[in-house]
Amino acid sequence: MPTRIFPTPQDAEAAFYEALERADLELMMAVWSEDEDIVCVHPGGPRLSGQDQVRESWRKIFAAGARARLHVTQQVTIAGSMVAVHSVHENFSLPGERKPMAAVVATNVYLRTAAGWRMVAHHGSPAPGSAEPPPETPKILH
Amino acid sequence: MPTRIFPTPQDAEAAFYEALERADLELMMAVWSEDEDIVCVHPGGPRLSGQDQVRESWRKIFAAGARARLHVTQQVTIAGSMVAVHSVHENFSLPGERKPMAAVVATNVYLRTAAGWRMVAHHGSPAPGSAEPPPETPKILH
Repeated sequence: MPTRIFPTPQDAEAAFYEALERADLELMMAVWSEDEDIVCVHPGGPRLSGQDQVRESWRKIFAAGARARLHVTQQVTIAGSMVAVHSVHENFSLPGERKPMAAVVATNVYLRTAAGWRMVAHHGSPAPGSAEPPPETPKILH
Repeated sequence: MPTRIFPTPQDAEAAFYEALERADLELMMAVWSEDEDIVCVHPGGPRLSGQDQVRESWRKIFAAGARARLHVTQQVTIAGSMVAVHSVHENFSLPGERKPMAAVVATNVYLRTAAGWRMVAHHGSPAPGSAEPPPETPKILH
């Protein structure tokens, strides 16, 4: 499969959330920088770093089979020529259920690389007032 | 008071944690970028954005009078010419108490500006296994 190129940080972010919603591990990892210096914190989880830890965490989350609908809101962006920081709310809901699930506050950092824009850091944490842990949290998926 | 200049991201980070440990609001805000596009998530807290929200949150935390000792470990850095992303563990302990307090996983983003390196994003969340909320969390300080 050819490597995906993301011409803008928004393209990379759209692919990140598409991968998350579809539980698509290959697309997810295509969004991340290929460097070892990547960091990922899932809501309530430890700090993960490096390709192996980050890939394995997403593999476990996606393998658990949760399929939540995702609506990203309240984006605040810090944009430079080589870096973009996006702060967003990830609003999850289960298909067929009216009750909204918890929201996640996420900080996403993208760098411009020779292969387009790539994610180098993702830090998610439960938004206050959340009734339930979000589906991105591995512990509720096992 | 003249504005502090931080020649490197490490200088800015050292000042950030010095300000946090000393509850020094002016030093804390000297570390942050003067742009409105700054974001801050305290452990368990909502996403704050802009100078007013960020300053007010630190003012409340510092005014509560908590004075924890802070030891920063496990730093992972993503370094560019204009951006630095630092992922760290913030280990808090109360002076005079042997029992360690909870750790916080933090993602700190710094940009190189005309006025030196400044923080543009801070996202903290409780590290797994934490027995107590960290002192950085406003809710335990009121």
